[in-house]
Amino acid sequence: MTDYKRHTAFGGRIVMIGFGSIGQGVLPLILRHIDMPKDKIVIITAEEKGKEVADAYGVEFRVAPVTRENYKDLVGKEIGKGDFLLNLSVDVSSIALAELARDKGALYLDTCIEPWVGGYTDTSLPPSLRSNYALREEFLAQRRPGKKDPTAVITHGANPGLVSHFVKQALLNIAKDTGVKADVPADRAGWGNLAKTLGVKVIHIAERDTQVTNNPKKVGEFVNTWSIDGFVSEGSQPTELGWGTHEKHWPYNASRHAFGCDAAIFLNRPGASTRVRTWTPTEGHFHGFLITHSEAISIADYFTVTEETGAAKAVTYRPTVHYAYHPCDDAVMSVHELAGKNWQQQPNQRLIVDEVVSGIDELGVLLAGHKKNAYWYGSQLSIEEARKLCPHNNATSLQVTVAVLGGLVWAMENPEKGIVEPDEMDFQRVLDVCMPYLGPVVGAYSDWTPLESRGVLFAEDVDYDDPWQFKNVLVV
Amino acid sequence: MTDYKRHTAFGGRIVMIGFGSIGQGVLPLILRHIDMPKDKIVIITAEEKGKEVADAYGVEFRVAPVTRENYKDLVGKEIGKGDFLLNLSVDVSSIALAELARDKGALYLDTCIEPWVGGYTDTSLPPSLRSNYALREEFLAQRRPGKKDPTAVITHGANPGLVSHFVKQALLNIAKDTGVKADVPADRAGWGNLAKTLGVKVIHIAERDTQVTNNPKKVGEFVNTWSIDGFVSEGSQPTELGWGTHEKHWPYNASRHAFGCDAAIFLNRPGASTRVRTWTPTEGHFHGFLITHSEAISIADYFTVTEETGAAKAVTYRPTVHYAYHPCDDAVMSVHELAGKNWQQQPNQRLIVDEVVSGIDELGVLLAGHKKNAYWYGSQLSIEEARKLCPHNNATSLQVTVAVLGGLVWAMENPEKGIVEPDEMDFQRVLDVCMPYLGPVVGAYSDWTPLESRGVLFAEDVDYDDPWQFKNVLVV
Ligand SMILES: NC(=O)c1ccc[n+]([C@@H]2O[C@H](COP(=O)([O-])OP(=O)(O)OC[C@H]3O[C@@H](n4cnc5c(N)ncnc54)[C@H](O)[C@@H]3O)[C@@H](O)[C@H]2O)c1
Ligand SMILES: NC(=O)c1ccc[n+]([C@@H]2O[C@H](COP(=O)([O-])OP(=O)(O)OC[C@H]3O[C@@H](n4cnc5c(N)ncnc54)[C@H](O)[C@@H]3O)[C@@H](O)[C@H]2O)c1
Repeated sequence: MTDYKRHTAFGGRIVMIGFGSIGQGVLPLILRHIDMPKDKIVIITAEEKGKEVADAYGVEFRVAPVTRENYKDLVGKEIGKGDFLLNLSVDVSSIALAELARDKGALYLDTCIEPWVGGYTDTSLPPSLRSNYALREEFLAQRRPGKKDPTAVITHGANPGLVSHFVKQALLNIAKDTGVKADVPADRAGWGNLAKTLGVKVIHIAERDTQVTNNPKKVGEFVNTWSIDGFVSEGSQPTELGWGTHEKHWPYNASRHAFGCDAAIFLNRPGASTRVRTWTPTEGHFHGFLITHSEAISIADYFTVTEETGAAKAVTYRPTVHYAYHPCDDAVMSVHELAGKNWQQQPNQRLIVDEVVSGIDELGVLLAGHKKNAYWYGSQLSIEEARKLCPHNNATSLQVTVAVLGGLVWAMENPEKGIVEPDEMDFQRVLDVCMPYLGPVVGAYSDWTPLESRGVLFAEDVDYDDPWQFKNVLVV
Repeated sequence: MTDYKRHTAFGGRIVMIGFGSIGQGVLPLILRHIDMPKDKIVIITAEEKGKEVADAYGVEFRVAPVTRENYKDLVGKEIGKGDFLLNLSVDVSSIALAELARDKGALYLDTCIEPWVGGYTDTSLPPSLRSNYALREEFLAQRRPGKKDPTAVITHGANPGLVSHFVKQALLNIAKDTGVKADVPADRAGWGNLAKTLGVKVIHIAERDTQVTNNPKKVGEFVNTWSIDGFVSEGSQPTELGWGTHEKHWPYNASRHAFGCDAAIFLNRPGASTRVRTWTPTEGHFHGFLITHSEAISIADYFTVTEETGAAKAVTYRPTVHYAYHPCDDAVMSVHELAGKNWQQQPNQRLIVDEVVSGIDELGVLLAGHKKNAYWYGSQLSIEEARKLCPHNNATSLQVTVAVLGGLVWAMENPEKGIVEPDEMDFQRVLDVCMPYLGPVVGAYSDWTPLESRGVLFAEDVDYDDPWQFKNVLVV
């Protein structure tokens, strides 16, 4: 048996809500790397799914769906001061659970700001209020500055989560490679100024998942390498992106939100219907979906540089930030089918973990517009390596579950930080925990821009003067 | 051994150019249903592909790529009066071959108007001249009215081809079912007036291919159930559609051609990048690609009704006609990848015939806007049935190859018609030949319109007053 490094010891209980692809994948990591007895872990979930995994590890498993009506009692009675509420469910309000944890004195972590069931597609709300922007503003409004609230790490999976740490490492790498002397910035302003100095205009979360199965997708089936419900939900939210200060062309059907930090905008259409051009080292350039994600907003917000001009504050720098996601091929097909049905979800779903036969999840950040044009930094984890590293994972889930582990460790080590976004954590500590599970983590420069091989067969309406305009990135 | 019906006897030679999925699939049909000795058939093709099939049937097979430089000699010396030049190749000019056949006194048939290699994507030509519209005009200009030229059936596969006959049958069925008394029209004007009387606004060639393999598509591979080169070529041509008289909204980036019959328009973008909403009985509604096809133009042209108003002729009726093609799932993925590479074709390709494990090709015509809203009429051929009916075919190819057989029979029976489009042939005779090989041929009415379940999650810019506007059909 391998001797796994214990990153920290934990004296409380861990109450895990939800036990799908992420919950099942993270359990072995917790047991390996956090020094605590397994009988202090309990899983509360909505269905039998995963029971055999919990049983195999001898961890308590309860089926008890959490609802708006029962959560205070059902979950509340499980947690107390010094415990950890680990939320890996869908359809349960992250904000409600985090507030409950705080009130009980427990730590908290999630990988996504989930609303109560149906919230993402609640058409009684205008699109602006079905956005991740709105969910994030609502969550951050729960902060109580000055109080030493228990730490609640929000949106800390692979992305959102890990990628925020990749961005910082990438900035330091670019600085070094372009001869810009930079210490590791100590605060938000420092990071913003570094990105500004380097001339980073655009940050894509650029992901190409090539995992495949030899059991072909059936008609009426959504196939994916992680939560189908999670993906369909976020894909049905409005297209959202952090809106950079270099942008000159307002997108068709775009709006600002009338409230909040103003770092992001949205398009009046589902993200799963919006394609963008991006680049990863193995795949080269490709079309991904501009699925809304919390990191598109938090990173854009975090790196915003403002200057006082007289009485007012003016934004002088912000990168454009968004996800550019090529899910596994079967999921691309599933999205195509879903769009054809006007976003009414397929009756069947299939999460592929054990049946993946080959492929990698190439997940990283593409920082572009600087001196060396574009730089991708991230993980190229294969299914074979993921399996070798940790059971109950595929390449996609392991990038998430190890980031959950990193977030847990950091929160346990920093238990009184209140609500914290990935961008506000110690990126080096989290990367330390994650690195052994990410397969090859590489940085690669590229000459590619979204103008490459454009306008060959047909003239296209592009901005040839500034390659990194969103107008050039968007597929129309 | 089954006793196959001989539809006709043929005294000349058949010289087949190209022996890919269609050539190989049609050979057994010719041998079964046309009374002629097999040593009067010769295959001339560009590669070894298919040799084992030709050998199995004892049919002469020669590898000799046909080019602009050698075709007059290479092909010319093979054909004489009373022979048949059957063109099932890609990258060889249909117009050149047809002219050669005519000059030699030979009959001719193709399934697609192919230009010489590279013609579809020759960027020295404006998009209008890379269109099927332009190719068709050029072909039809070769007609010599009054002369008894040997018959040259052009674009007679499944679609273009068979679907023109489906349209006529569908019109008669709708007439019957809506209580419109109609004899079978005797001429073009009669057919146009029938469509006009019935109120048909839109004709989709609506196809859903569900054939799958359990060998997943690789990165850099284009997978399809018929010619990959053929599909990529036509998918790279401009989006083209017959433009109906009921249309009120001019599409973005659309143009008329400055010459010819004016029945069709084009959009300044590849057809494989243009998605449209359509409907088939088994699939229900879905998104297909608006790939340009000859039938979109010929059917729109054929059913155009003009009236003399003083000195001028005015178009008083024309349906909107276009292809709405959902190729097999792996081909949808392949198109997605191709688009991501800005239409630079993948290095590898895989034609799936024997390795198809399940699925059907549901191919028919959707006539809409009439009293009963929408009517689909077509073939729902499964891979299992296709295999039972004829070797060397999948469901897709058999719909094509049997239409080639039908065209051959009709041409042999009508040898002096000059250049003929499917719409000008005897639809009943061709359907007679085809029916035994099409699996279930069904007609189905539907309430579906492109407005169904639209604007639920996000407001959409649609025309609620007239469901069958192209504006509503187009996916933006
Ligand atoms: N940040 C990231 O990188 C990242 C990546 C993947 C997933 N996620 C997020 O992680 C979460 C879980 O993803 P997954 O792939 O494990 O999802 P999954 O669909 O595989 O599993 C969801 C789990 O939630 C449970 N659940 C559903 N309703 C519940 C309820 N009312 N009460 C209790 N449990 C309930 C289900 O029973 C299931 O165990 C989702 O929010 C997803 O968006 C984040
Ligand atoms: N109307 C329809 O329904 C329909 C359907 C399918 C295919 N098609 C058309 O039929 C044609 C053949 O399709 P396929 O699926 O058999 O294609 P394929 O790619 O399978 O085969 C093409 C054949 O053409 C041959 N070829 C290529 N270059 C040649 C040259 N210079 N000289 C001689 N032969 C050459 C190749 O060797 C091959 O045998 C294409 O034009 C395609 O668009 C029409």
